[in-house]
Amino acid sequence: MTHKILILPGDGIGPEIIAEAVKVLDVFRAEGSLQAEYEYAHLGGAGYDAAGHPYPEETRKLASESDAILLGAVGGPQYDTLPREFRPEKGLLTIRTDLGLFANLRPAILYDELADASTLKNEVVAGLDLMIVRELNHGIYFGQPRGIRVLENGERQGYNTATYSESQIERIARVAFATAMKRNKRLCSVDKYNVLEVSELWREVVCRVGQAFPEVELSHMYIDNAAMQLIRAPKQFDVIVTSNMFGDILSDEAAMLTGSIGMLPSASLNASAVGMYEPSHGSAPDIAGQGIANPLATILSAAMMLRYSLQLPELAARIEAAVEAVLRQKLRTADIYVSGCEKVSTAQMGSAVMAAL
Amino acid sequence: MTHKILILPGDGIGPEIIAEAVKVLDVFRAEGSLQAEYEYAHLGGAGYDAAGHPYPEETRKLASESDAILLGAVGGPQYDTLPREFRPEKGLLTIRTDLGLFANLRPAILYDELADASTLKNEVVAGLDLMIVRELNHGIYFGQPRGIRVLENGERQGYNTATYSESQIERIARVAFATAMKRNKRLCSVDKYNVLEVSELWREVVCRVGQAFPEVELSHMYIDNAAMQLIRAPKQFDVIVTSNMFGDILSDEAAMLTGSIGMLPSASLNASAVGMYEPSHGSAPDIAGQGIANPLATILSAAMMLRYSLQLPELAARIEAAVEAVLRQKLRTADIYVSGCEKVSTAQMGSAVMAAL
Ligand SMILES: CC(C)[C@H](C(=O)O)[C@@H](O)C(=O)O
Ligand SMILES: CC(C)[C@H](C(=O)O)[C@@H](O)C(=O)O
Repeated sequence: MTHKILILPGDGIGPEIIAEAVKVLDVFRAEGSLQAEYEYAHLGGAGYDAAGHPYPEETRKLASESDAILLGAVGGPQYDTLPREFRPEKGLLTIRTDLGLFANLRPAILYDELADASTLKNEVVAGLDLMIVRELNHGIYFGQPRGIRVLENGERQGYNTATYSESQIERIARVAFATAMKRNKRLCSVDKYNVLEVSELWREVVCRVGQAFPEVELSHMYIDNAAMQLIRAPKQFDVIVTSNMFGDILSDEAAMLTGSIGMLPSASLNASAVGMYEPSHGSAPDIAGQGIANPLATILSAAMMLRYSLQLPELAARIEAAVEAVLRQKLRTADIYVSGCEKVSTAQMGSAVMAAL
Repeated sequence: MTHKILILPGDGIGPEIIAEAVKVLDVFRAEGSLQAEYEYAHLGGAGYDAAGHPYPEETRKLASESDAILLGAVGGPQYDTLPREFRPEKGLLTIRTDLGLFANLRPAILYDELADASTLKNEVVAGLDLMIVRELNHGIYFGQPRGIRVLENGERQGYNTATYSESQIERIARVAFATAMKRNKRLCSVDKYNVLEVSELWREVVCRVGQAFPEVELSHMYIDNAAMQLIRAPKQFDVIVTSNMFGDILSDEAAMLTGSIGMLPSASLNASAVGMYEPSHGSAPDIAGQGIANPLATILSAAMMLRYSLQLPELAARIEAAVEAVLRQKLRTADIYVSGCEKVSTAQMGSAVMAAL
């Protein structure tokens, strides 16, 4: 069976880092361990430039026919002044809902070799390995009604609605519990139960789903406390599950604990395990085109793709081992460079991973 | 003129830490530099226990007649199972809106003497001194409609509404710019402009207010990036202004950067500079009644009260200097104790500050 992989280089450093992930996947294709066809399409600013839309019809069609999608990154200052519906972010948000990619898995792992990159003390973060499971299709990102209206007194009011239904909470909770079962069996659900009704339902449903996972130790934490605890003692967490908005905040906070966001992949999955895989970092327009971006988060995203969508965990593990090997060889792109190591380009890093496979 | 100060000890460690702040204020009353009368009333669980409501009518009446309010803390596990409208948090939320306390000022300051308490590396946080200005009366905390409803397909849906009108944004922005003018003249407004319409209006109005403060350097940051930047390089910030929910999260995150949340005061002000002052930490029911809680955040909250509501900045400065002095004397409550220092009780710490005044 041949897997269909859609590749969306996107904007900024996207094309450069995607090229390295493709080089790595091509090693498997060449040796015959991966049967895959690639299609290429545009998303984000690249979509707007090529077809007048951040999620062009052509991309939508190809996406619906794919088994997995590998995305570089979207966004750039030249698109900031466009109307909201043409901005790169809108393309990203739309492909997420269009494909029903409701489960966003964002690991925060601190590689031993990069422990010094963290702004936190070594003993606080050494060995950090947590997984954030963020709901990606609902909540305040998509809730209706929304907009800017004129009030009776003549002034304008901006409004957005945070909503979650039972089934929407249930399915993300299931993913989170299942994820915890494969890890250390501890799940922390983050909400604002003491203020929000939407959190009240969230907590109730998470508890209910938990009854089917008696081995998982479930706890609950308020979002403000979670933002603190991630700094105070991040290793207390195994898996965190939370809503779209809180997950956006906590996953970036957790990523930054490692100090090396250029290393962190992410997966966004739907109910049929079709997934979109992308680095946790952004499109870094300031360094685009210079060949100095770190491709490792994208390469590790390809590994997540092999594991979650293509059911090829051995190949995923080989990539992950190869990334650790190049770190041990002291190869570093500029973002993770420290003296005593060898500074390499985007392409050199990709080639080093190929060689280490 | 005699100031009317309402004292709300609240729950958990509240009464113990409030007692120490009162001891300190009494020094000024005794020497004649502060003319003040105290009233005492209940808020939170204490209000529920005494009068069946977390914000009793008696408290409401006294609050409306006061120039300033000093609050300990509210909350405790015994109240968690009460219906939402009787929980301690509801008392806190209601007094905030009842008095129109829309501007929440939460400093995050790292005292040199306590630099080691931070989980962040010393060079990243040494000298940290930032101020978060959080809107406290609107946004998703209070927006209508809200609740849990049954959808057409029979399942329940939780929903909350985030709203901000122009005038609501304007007045918090004014406070933030004025605060920046008294500090290093840099203001960062945090929003989620790329996703939320309510943030779109927020950003527009903050920019407009900024035209009246040309000396203040205004920047904008997405909430997810702000959560990261606070960890990566917290000293880049001077003043941060943001909405109720984002401010809840960021102010706790920023507080934890110092590692000594037992040291951080807060102020919640209305348009007439009536204010409620309380420590940033919670009611710590686990250590209540043991006489080991840190009273310094409450004592520093009393200093903020003297500065912002009673227009007595010299007295505020004397308290702040006294707190630094006791830290230099190496007196520490249990939460900030390290070997080589002297461990003291809540009351001993309060007395030491009195002596150092
Ligand atoms: C670009 C933006 C819309 C997006 C989000 O907020 O979801 C990003 O921050 C992310 O986390 O993937
Ligand atoms: C207790 C809770 C309602 C409150 C809030 O969320 O505002 C607290 O976290 C705070 O920051 O003062």
